[in-house]
Amino acid sequence: MRFYDLIIKKRDGQELTKKEINFMIKEYCEDRIPDYQMSAMLMAIYFQGMNIDEIKYLTMAMVHSGKIIDLSSIPGIKVDKHSTGGVGDTTTLALAPMVAAAGVPVAKMSGRGLGHTGGTIDKLESIKGFKTELGLNKFINIVKKVGASIISPTSDLAPADKKLYALRDVTGTIDSIPLIVSSIMSKKLAAGADAIVLDVTTGSGAFMKEYKDALKLGKIMVDIGLEFGKETVSVITNMGEPLGFAIGNSLEVKEAIEVLKNRGPEDLRDLCLVLGAYMLELGGAAKNYEEGRKRLEKILKEGTAFSKFKEMVAAQGGNPEIIDKPELLPLAKHCTKIKAVITGYIQKIDSQLIGESAMLLGAGREKKESEIDLSVGIILKKKVGSKVNINEDLAEVYYNDSEKLKEAKNKLLSSFVIGDKKPKKIPLILAAISKEGVKEFR
Amino acid sequence: MRFYDLIIKKRDGQELTKKEINFMIKEYCEDRIPDYQMSAMLMAIYFQGMNIDEIKYLTMAMVHSGKIIDLSSIPGIKVDKHSTGGVGDTTTLALAPMVAAAGVPVAKMSGRGLGHTGGTIDKLESIKGFKTELGLNKFINIVKKVGASIISPTSDLAPADKKLYALRDVTGTIDSIPLIVSSIMSKKLAAGADAIVLDVTTGSGAFMKEYKDALKLGKIMVDIGLEFGKETVSVITNMGEPLGFAIGNSLEVKEAIEVLKNRGPEDLRDLCLVLGAYMLELGGAAKNYEEGRKRLEKILKEGTAFSKFKEMVAAQGGNPEIIDKPELLPLAKHCTKIKAVITGYIQKIDSQLIGESAMLLGAGREKKESEIDLSVGIILKKKVGSKVNINEDLAEVYYNDSEKLKEAKNKLLSSFVIGDKKPKKIPLILAAISKEGVKEFR
Repeated sequence: MRFYDLIIKKRDGQELTKKEINFMIKEYCEDRIPDYQMSAMLMAIYFQGMNIDEIKYLTMAMVHSGKIIDLSSIPGIKVDKHSTGGVGDTTTLALAPMVAAAGVPVAKMSGRGLGHTGGTIDKLESIKGFKTELGLNKFINIVKKVGASIISPTSDLAPADKKLYALRDVTGTIDSIPLIVSSIMSKKLAAGADAIVLDVTTGSGAFMKEYKDALKLGKIMVDIGLEFGKETVSVITNMGEPLGFAIGNSLEVKEAIEVLKNRGPEDLRDLCLVLGAYMLELGGAAKNYEEGRKRLEKILKEGTAFSKFKEMVAAQGGNPEIIDKPELLPLAKHCTKIKAVITGYIQKIDSQLIGESAMLLGAGREKKESEIDLSVGIILKKKVGSKVNINEDLAEVYYNDSEKLKEAKNKLLSSFVIGDKKPKKIPLILAAISKEGVKEFR
Repeated sequence: MRFYDLIIKKRDGQELTKKEINFMIKEYCEDRIPDYQMSAMLMAIYFQGMNIDEIKYLTMAMVHSGKIIDLSSIPGIKVDKHSTGGVGDTTTLALAPMVAAAGVPVAKMSGRGLGHTGGTIDKLESIKGFKTELGLNKFINIVKKVGASIISPTSDLAPADKKLYALRDVTGTIDSIPLIVSSIMSKKLAAGADAIVLDVTTGSGAFMKEYKDALKLGKIMVDIGLEFGKETVSVITNMGEPLGFAIGNSLEVKEAIEVLKNRGPEDLRDLCLVLGAYMLELGGAAKNYEEGRKRLEKILKEGTAFSKFKEMVAAQGGNPEIIDKPELLPLAKHCTKIKAVITGYIQKIDSQLIGESAMLLGAGREKKESEIDLSVGIILKKKVGSKVNINEDLAEVYYNDSEKLKEAKNKLLSSFVIGDKKPKKIPLILAAISKEGVKEFR
């Protein structure tokens, strides 16, 4: 078999066989297919797509490029969660302890961020002492004892995805449904959970700008999960504006703590309740979504999720005192504000631009090697639909380095669109897809 | 400017600017764009195409990646010729001396072959002593003195094309009209001729399998030539069967000599007359195509083209005696035949399969580094339309090494399709495209 012939086959719109896809992944991982041939293949897949069988074979080949983690020693149905990405998305930090407090074990591997802000792992590292690189045994023991643990992926977790993602990232082949699905699902399946809840974001700050594309992506991921015998739910959510008020690593940790204290921004809290309710349903801790949601509302009210988070922080070497006193989290030295230049209603907050602004402040990585400044970021004072008066604050900017501050502030200011009429607000939760089908919320 | 953004732009079907295309070629040649990004771009161009402006800018950028050869010291209008490739195509060897004999100087750089058989340069090297790597001054002096010279391209002739072609060759991005046009035209324009005649082949042995695609390719090349102020004619020819009877390096030289002796296969002779007639017209040695053709028929009859070829061979260090006695050319040690298994008419001879058969014998290069055996090849005994009886010879196979002989013979046999009815023969010359428009011959 020659990889050249497979490039031509896909380029010409033909279906690749299981054998051919296995060959492709194996040879690429073992450096017998050069990057310049693989990037041509990735671009051909971008244009010609893949059918559900091809996506299944690709996902499977990527799972088996490494080891599948064995979580069977943890009692109960382990439910994993993943988001296709949003700006200011700190859901996992609140969600994991909420779900664990309801008795569903969460053994989660989470990535570092590339782009606007850090990933969950970066955010957790703003808690002093918190270790994200534990051995597999320690990780499993914490889940057994506490109910939740979040660590960095082990190096043998779908290594094919790591290698392919790095190539896609520099060759314009990220936004391809078959490549997104196989990337996400291979990691989730290799991480060993029994069921999966996916947050598929749509809107200006997300991969899938259009609702219909997000729906398609969510549906294929449910199908792929089921193909592998894992019950999967995709929740389609609107990332038309950033989630919550905080964008930036330690700022988002603070906001997650607010949610766990039964406060926090309404949209972030709501998303945690929705995703959590499905996790409880799949994990057998609730009969259905409605029961799961009620259970989690009670948990937040009683503070058990908050205690669970402190327990998890302590078990992973972090200082639990910080969770009680979030003012101990790192905070940038300086703060400045941006103000509205006219009176009106916020029509739109462009997540993409806000993300780029946060990155300019140092909150995200431009390249893999870049250092993140965990203490910087943005706090929104207004959300879409808010009334704002001229000269009223739109956002606070926390910064250490004033070099790119002006550019960051300009981007931030231009992300707010202010108009005369109160806009119709798009709901956060748009649809949920499960084996039963699509349930639209809007 | 980031090359990543240009990949996305082309992927999304947008037009690249002159500045962007210049950046792409310059940075790639200077190794600041890695192959894995360029191959993604090439595949995006394959799918999205390029408009005439983009092709013009790409061609220009590739021309200027090296030096433009200055032929101004040679008196007269220098006319270059190029073929998009066919099996058994030895046209240049006969054509160059024919045109030179009519007083139009031919200063031609020609490539080595990758694929079925060698290129013109390889074929010429089967003439003992013939040197194809002359200095530029010597090359120009031979053209001044003899009227024709054929050498290998100098290393600074459109080096961007060399680098890009090597990448296209292994990434499934050869068959793209903008990439074919810019590759061919950049080399022709850098080679310094005043006018260009192109043989655009179509059929089973050619890049462009379909007549309409060949027509499109021919038209764009004429437009690009005119954009650069070089009058250009594209002749669309049928490569539905191999050209002439000989496939293989020294065998094809012998056949070219036959043409120069006013004999040789009808189709090869006809193609030389047609391409030559246009070269004479563009070179100012004939008022029009018809006059050019008559002039060349006379030249062949009088033997002046034959003498011109001997002069050129001698000037480039080859033994001119060989041209008088072609039996001195290298010939393989063994000969075997393949025979018809039924009686009937030849319906089709698949050029692609014949080419592959010749390559198995050692007549072509599979990889750049492969050695060519100049003495092996195939002589067809029948052409499309011929009557053949059972057990009658279809072809002779000249070979040295019997290792792949069986496979080569099987391919050769399967390339002949024999049927009951005499087939309608497709003419060799299908159309000619010039600044005046398209003239269809069929």
